[in-house]
Amino acid sequence: MNQTRWLLLGSALLAGAATVQADEKADPKKDAIKYRQAAMTLIGANFKPMGAMAKGDVPFNAQEFARRSRDVAAISAIDILAGFPQDTDGDGSKAKPEIWMKWDDFKQKMGDMERAAAKLAEAAKGGDAAAIKKQFGETGKTCKACHDDYKE
Amino acid sequence: MNQTRWLLLGSALLAGAATVQADEKADPKKDAIKYRQAAMTLIGANFKPMGAMAKGDVPFNAQEFARRSRDVAAISAIDILAGFPQDTDGDGSKAKPEIWMKWDDFKQKMGDMERAAAKLAEAAKGGDAAAIKKQFGETGKTCKACHDDYKE
Repeated sequence: MNQTRWLLLGSALLAGAATVQADEKADPKKDAIKYRQAAMTLIGANFKPMGAMAKGDVPFNAQEFARRSRDVAAISAIDILAGFPQDTDGDGSKAKPEIWMKWDDFKQKMGDMERAAAKLAEAAKGGDAAAIKKQFGETGKTCKACHDDYKE
Repeated sequence: MNQTRWLLLGSALLAGAATVQADEKADPKKDAIKYRQAAMTLIGANFKPMGAMAKGDVPFNAQEFARRSRDVAAISAIDILAGFPQDTDGDGSKAKPEIWMKWDDFKQKMGDMERAAAKLAEAAKGGDAAAIKKQFGETGKTCKACHDDYKE
Protein backbone atom coordinates (compact mmCIF):
# COMPACT_ATOMS: atom_id res chain seq x y z
CA MET A 1 0.00 0.00 0.00
CA ASN A 2 1.52 3.34 -0.98
CA GLN A 3 1.50 6.49 1.12
CA THR A 4 -1.48 8.11 -0.58
CA ARG A 5 -3.58 5.04 0.01
CA TRP A 6 -2.59 5.04 3.67
CA LEU A 7 -3.56 8.70 3.97
CA LEU A 8 -6.93 8.02 2.34
CA LEU A 9 -7.47 5.06 4.62
CA GLY A 10 -6.47 7.16 7.61
CA SER A 11 -8.97 9.90 6.88
CA ALA A 12 -11.76 7.42 6.18
CA LEU A 13 -11.04 5.78 9.52
CA LEU A 14 -10.94 9.05 11.43
CA ALA A 15 -14.21 10.19 9.90
CA GLY A 16 -15.82 6.87 10.71
CA ALA A 17 -14.46 6.67 14.23
CA ALA A 18 -15.45 10.24 15.09
CA THR A 19 -19.17 9.46 15.10
CA VAL A 20 -18.63 6.42 17.28
CA GLN A 21 -16.42 8.13 19.80
CA ALA A 22 -18.23 11.46 20.08
CA ASP A 23 -20.88 10.30 22.50
CA GLU A 24 -18.95 7.79 24.61
CA LYS A 25 -15.82 8.00 26.68
CA ALA A 26 -13.89 4.76 27.00
CA ASP A 27 -15.29 2.70 29.88
CA PRO A 28 -14.58 -1.00 29.25
CA LYS A 29 -17.14 -2.20 31.80
CA LYS A 30 -19.98 -0.03 30.50
CA ASP A 31 -19.00 -0.91 26.94
CA ALA A 32 -19.15 -4.62 27.76
CA ILE A 33 -22.59 -4.26 29.37
CA LYS A 34 -23.84 -2.26 26.41
CA TYR A 35 -22.42 -4.85 24.02
CA ARG A 36 -24.07 -7.89 25.59
CA GLN A 37 -27.34 -6.05 26.16
CA ALA A 38 -27.35 -5.06 22.49
CA ALA A 39 -26.95 -8.71 21.49
CA MET A 40 -29.78 -9.73 23.84
CA THR A 41 -31.98 -6.89 22.53
CA LEU A 42 -31.61 -8.15 18.97
CA ILE A 43 -32.21 -11.76 19.94
CA GLY A 44 -35.22 -10.91 22.13
CA ALA A 45 -36.76 -8.58 19.56
CA ASN A 46 -36.78 -11.43 17.05
CA PHE A 47 -37.62 -14.18 19.51
CA LYS A 48 -40.77 -12.53 20.86
CA PRO A 49 -42.69 -12.35 17.55
CA MET A 50 -41.54 -15.89 16.74
CA GLY A 51 -43.05 -16.93 20.06
CA ALA A 52 -46.31 -15.22 19.21
CA MET A 53 -46.41 -17.20 15.97
CA ALA A 54 -45.45 -20.47 17.65
CA LYS A 55 -48.17 -19.98 20.27
CA GLY A 56 -50.73 -19.06 17.61
CA ASP A 57 -51.33 -15.54 18.98
CA VAL A 58 -50.63 -14.30 15.47
CA PRO A 59 -50.82 -16.26 12.22
CA PHE A 60 -47.73 -18.31 11.40
CA ASN A 61 -45.78 -16.54 8.65
CA ALA A 62 -43.18 -18.99 7.37
CA GLN A 63 -41.12 -16.36 5.59
CA GLU A 64 -40.98 -14.00 8.56
CA PHE A 65 -40.25 -16.87 10.93
CA ALA A 66 -37.40 -18.05 8.70
CA ARG A 67 -35.91 -14.56 8.51
CA ARG A 68 -36.14 -13.98 12.24
CA SER A 69 -34.72 -17.38 13.11
CA ARG A 70 -31.83 -16.77 10.69
CA ASP A 71 -31.13 -13.44 12.37
CA VAL A 72 -31.30 -14.97 15.85
CA ALA A 73 -28.86 -17.68 14.72
CA ALA A 74 -26.52 -15.05 13.27
CA ILE A 75 -26.52 -12.96 16.45
CA SER A 76 -26.18 -16.04 18.68
CA ALA A 77 -23.09 -16.99 16.68
CA ILE A 78 -21.20 -13.73 17.25
CA ASP A 79 -18.77 -13.59 20.14
CA ILE A 80 -21.30 -12.69 22.84
CA LEU A 81 -18.93 -13.97 25.53
CA ALA A 82 -16.66 -11.04 24.66
CA GLY A 83 -19.38 -8.93 26.28
CA PHE A 84 -18.88 -10.69 29.62
CA PRO A 85 -15.40 -9.77 30.84
CA GLN A 86 -14.59 -10.84 34.41
CA ASP A 87 -16.76 -9.32 37.16
CA THR A 88 -18.79 -6.91 35.08
CA ASP A 89 -21.98 -7.35 37.10
CA GLY A 90 -23.75 -4.35 38.60
CA ASP A 91 -23.99 -0.91 36.94
CA GLY A 92 -27.48 -1.51 35.61
CA SER A 93 -26.62 -5.00 34.36
CA LYS A 94 -28.75 -7.97 35.35
CA ALA A 95 -25.80 -10.33 35.00
CA LYS A 96 -25.22 -12.30 38.21
CA PRO A 97 -21.71 -12.72 39.67
CA GLU A 98 -22.28 -16.49 39.32
CA ILE A 99 -21.37 -16.08 35.65
CA TRP A 100 -17.70 -15.72 36.55
CA MET A 101 -17.84 -18.27 39.36
CA LYS A 102 -19.17 -20.92 36.97
CA TRP A 103 -17.72 -19.62 33.73
CA ASP A 104 -17.43 -23.02 32.05
CA ASP A 105 -21.09 -23.76 32.69
CA PHE A 106 -22.09 -20.29 31.49
CA LYS A 107 -20.02 -20.76 28.34
CA GLN A 108 -21.56 -24.19 27.79
CA LYS A 109 -25.08 -22.78 28.12
CA MET A 110 -24.27 -19.96 25.73
CA GLY A 111 -23.03 -22.57 23.28
CA ASP A 112 -26.24 -24.59 23.76
CA MET A 113 -28.21 -21.50 22.75
CA GLU A 114 -26.06 -20.92 19.68
CA ARG A 115 -26.47 -24.56 18.55
CA ALA A 116 -30.23 -24.57 19.25
CA ALA A 117 -30.68 -21.32 17.33
CA ALA A 118 -28.75 -22.72 14.36
CA LYS A 119 -30.99 -25.80 14.35
CA LEU A 120 -34.05 -23.57 14.54
CA ALA A 121 -32.94 -21.58 11.49
CA GLU A 122 -32.37 -24.88 9.66
CA ALA A 123 -35.81 -26.16 10.66
CA ALA A 124 -37.40 -22.87 9.61
CA LYS A 125 -35.88 -23.23 6.15
CA GLY A 126 -37.42 -26.68 5.92
CA GLY A 127 -40.94 -25.32 6.44
CA ASP A 128 -42.32 -28.23 8.54
CA ALA A 129 -44.44 -26.31 11.09
CA ALA A 130 -44.42 -29.05 13.74
CA ALA A 131 -40.64 -29.43 13.54
CA ILE A 132 -40.19 -25.66 13.64
CA LYS A 133 -42.38 -25.24 16.72
CA LYS A 134 -40.65 -28.13 18.49
CA GLN A 135 -37.21 -26.64 17.82
CA PHE A 136 -38.49 -23.22 18.86
CA GLY A 137 -39.41 -24.73 22.22
CA GLU A 138 -35.95 -26.31 22.49
CA THR A 139 -34.30 -22.99 21.74
CA GLY A 140 -36.47 -21.17 24.29
CA LYS A 141 -35.33 -23.68 26.89
CA THR A 142 -31.70 -22.77 26.27
CA CYS A 143 -32.54 -19.07 26.83
CA LYS A 144 -34.37 -19.93 30.03
CA ALA A 145 -31.59 -22.23 31.30
CA CYS A 146 -29.10 -19.39 31.21
CA HIS A 147 -31.49 -16.68 32.46
CA ASP A 148 -32.59 -18.85 35.40
CA ASP A 149 -29.04 -19.26 36.65
CA TYR A 150 -27.27 -16.13 35.54
CA LYS A 151 -29.75 -13.26 35.15
CA GLU A 152 -31.33 -11.30 37.99
CA MET B 1 -47.65 -32.30 18.02
CA ASN B 2 -49.74 -33.75 20.84
CA GLN B 3 -51.33 -31.75 23.62
CA THR B 4 -48.64 -32.43 26.24
CA ARG B 5 -45.98 -31.18 23.88
CA TRP B 6 -47.96 -28.04 23.22
CA LEU B 7 -48.32 -27.46 26.94
CA LEU B 8 -44.59 -27.93 27.47
CA LEU B 9 -43.87 -25.58 24.60
CA GLY B 10 -46.33 -23.05 25.99
CA SER B 11 -44.74 -22.97 29.44
CA ALA B 12 -41.22 -22.73 28.00
CA LEU B 13 -42.36 -19.78 25.91
CA LEU B 14 -44.07 -18.01 28.76
CA ALA B 15 -41.06 -18.41 31.00
CA GLY B 16 -38.75 -17.14 28.27
CA ALA B 17 -40.95 -14.23 27.30
CA ALA B 18 -41.54 -13.09 30.89
CA THR B 19 -37.98 -11.84 31.32
CA VAL B 20 -38.11 -9.95 28.06
CA GLN B 21 -41.44 -8.29 28.74
CA ALA B 22 -41.01 -7.45 32.41
CA ASP B 23 -39.05 -4.25 31.85
CA GLU B 24 -40.63 -2.95 28.65
CA LYS B 25 -44.14 -2.05 27.69
CA ALA B 26 -44.94 -2.37 24.01
CA ASP B 27 -43.89 0.78 22.17
CA PRO B 28 -43.15 -0.03 18.54
CA LYS B 29 -41.24 3.22 17.92
CA LYS B 30 -38.99 2.88 20.97
CA ASP B 31 -38.51 -0.81 20.20
CA ALA B 32 -37.43 0.04 16.65
CA ILE B 33 -34.95 2.67 17.87
CA LYS B 34 -33.56 0.26 20.46
CA TYR B 35 -33.28 -2.45 17.81
CA ARG B 36 -31.31 -0.44 15.27
CA GLN B 37 -29.15 1.16 17.96
CA ALA B 38 -28.34 -2.32 19.27
CA ALA B 39 -27.21 -3.39 15.79
CA MET B 40 -25.07 -0.25 15.45
CA THR B 41 -23.60 -0.79 18.93
CA LEU B 42 -22.45 -4.28 17.99
CA ILE B 43 -21.05 -3.15 14.66
CA GLY B 44 -19.28 -0.13 16.16
CA ALA B 45 -17.86 -2.07 19.10
CA ASN B 46 -16.17 -4.43 16.67
CA PHE B 47 -15.28 -1.82 14.07
CA LYS B 48 -13.39 0.46 16.44
CA PRO B 49 -10.73 -2.07 17.54
CA MET B 50 -10.39 -3.20 13.93
CA GLY B 51 -9.72 0.43 13.06
CA ALA B 52 -7.07 0.67 15.77
CA MET B 53 -5.36 -2.37 14.24
CA ALA B 54 -5.67 -1.07 10.68
CA LYS B 55 -4.19 2.27 11.71
CA GLY B 56 -1.39 0.58 13.63
CA ASP B 57 -2.39 2.07 16.99
CA VAL B 58 -2.36 -1.49 18.33
CA PRO B 59 -0.54 -4.50 16.84
CA PHE B 60 -2.41 -6.27 14.05
CA ASN B 61 -3.88 -9.50 15.40
CA ALA B 62 -5.05 -11.53 12.41
CA GLN B 63 -7.21 -13.89 14.46
CA GLU B 64 -8.99 -11.14 16.36
CA PHE B 65 -9.44 -9.11 13.19
CA ALA B 66 -10.95 -12.13 11.42
CA ARG B 67 -13.34 -12.80 14.30
CA ARG B 68 -14.46 -9.19 14.54
CA SER B 69 -14.91 -8.81 10.79
CA ARG B 70 -16.96 -12.03 10.74
CA ASP B 71 -19.17 -10.68 13.51
CA VAL B 72 -19.58 -7.32 11.76
CA ALA B 73 -20.55 -9.15 8.56
CA ALA B 74 -23.06 -11.29 10.49
CA ILE B 75 -24.70 -8.29 12.14
CA SER B 76 -24.70 -6.28 8.90
CA ALA B 77 -26.56 -9.16 7.26
CA ILE B 78 -29.46 -9.24 9.72
CA ASP B 79 -32.59 -7.27 8.80
CA ILE B 80 -31.41 -3.91 10.15
CA LEU B 81 -33.95 -2.12 7.94
CA ALA B 82 -36.66 -3.68 10.12
CA GLY B 83 -35.39 -1.27 12.78
CA PHE B 84 -36.31 1.72 10.63
CA PRO B 85 -40.09 1.75 10.33
CA GLN B 86 -41.57 4.86 8.70
CA ASP B 87 -40.94 8.16 10.51
CA THR B 88 -39.24 6.85 13.63
CA ASP B 89 -36.87 9.80 13.99
CA GLY B 90 -36.68 11.78 17.22
CA ASP B 91 -37.11 10.28 20.71
CA GLY B 92 -33.36 10.15 21.33
CA SER B 93 -32.63 8.68 17.90
CA LYS B 94 -30.06 10.31 15.63
CA ALA B 95 -31.83 9.03 12.54
CA LYS B 96 -32.71 11.88 10.17
CA PRO B 97 -36.16 12.14 8.55
CA GLU B 98 -34.34 12.02 5.19
CA ILE B 99 -34.17 8.23 5.67
CA TRP B 100 -37.84 7.91 4.82
CA MET B 101 -37.76 10.63 2.16
CA LYS B 102 -34.99 8.80 0.30
CA TRP B 103 -35.73 5.25 1.42
CA ASP B 104 -34.37 3.59 -1.73
CA ASP B 105 -31.06 5.37 -1.37
CA PHE B 106 -30.90 4.54 2.34
CA LYS B 107 -31.64 0.91 1.58
CA GLN B 108 -29.00 0.88 -1.13
CA LYS B 109 -26.39 2.34 1.23
CA MET B 110 -27.30 -0.20 3.91
CA GLY B 111 -26.83 -2.92 1.28
CA ASP B 112 -23.45 -1.42 0.32
CA MET B 113 -22.37 -1.75 3.94
CA GLU B 114 -23.55 -5.35 4.14
CA ARG B 115 -21.66 -6.27 0.95
CA ALA B 116 -18.49 -4.42 1.99
CA ALA B 117 -18.56 -6.10 5.41
CA ALA B 118 -18.93 -9.53 3.79
CA LYS B 119 -15.92 -8.80 1.56
CA LEU B 120 -13.95 -7.65 4.59
CA ALA B 121 -14.67 -10.90 6.43
CA GLU B 122 -13.56 -12.80 3.33
CA ALA B 123 -10.36 -10.76 3.05
CA ALA B 124 -9.68 -11.24 6.76
CA LYS B 125 -9.89 -15.01 6.32
CA GLY B 126 -7.32 -14.75 3.53
CA GLY B 127 -4.77 -13.11 5.82
CA ASP B 128 -3.26 -10.66 3.29
CA ALA B 129 -2.73 -7.60 5.50
CA ALA B 130 -2.67 -5.07 2.64
CA ALA B 131 -5.89 -6.47 1.14
CA ILE B 132 -7.52 -6.52 4.56
CA LYS B 133 -6.63 -2.91 5.31
CA LYS B 134 -7.79 -1.78 1.89
CA GLN B 135 -11.16 -3.51 2.33
CA PHE B 136 -11.41 -2.14 5.85
CA GLY B 137 -11.11 1.36 4.36
CA GLU B 138 -13.78 0.51 1.78
CA THR B 139 -16.11 -0.75 4.50
CA GLY B 140 -15.52 2.34 6.62
CA LYS B 141 -16.53 4.47 3.64
CA THR B 142 -19.90 2.71 3.45
CA CYS B 143 -20.51 3.48 7.15
CA LYS B 144 -19.58 7.10 6.58
CA ALA B 145 -21.72 7.43 3.42
CA CYS B 146 -24.82 6.53 5.37
CA HIS B 147 -23.94 8.48 8.52
CA ASP B 148 -23.15 11.62 6.50
CA ASP B 149 -26.58 11.66 4.90
CA TYR B 150 -28.83 10.04 7.44
CA LYS B 151 -27.41 10.44 10.95
CA GLU B 152 -27.49 13.64 13.01
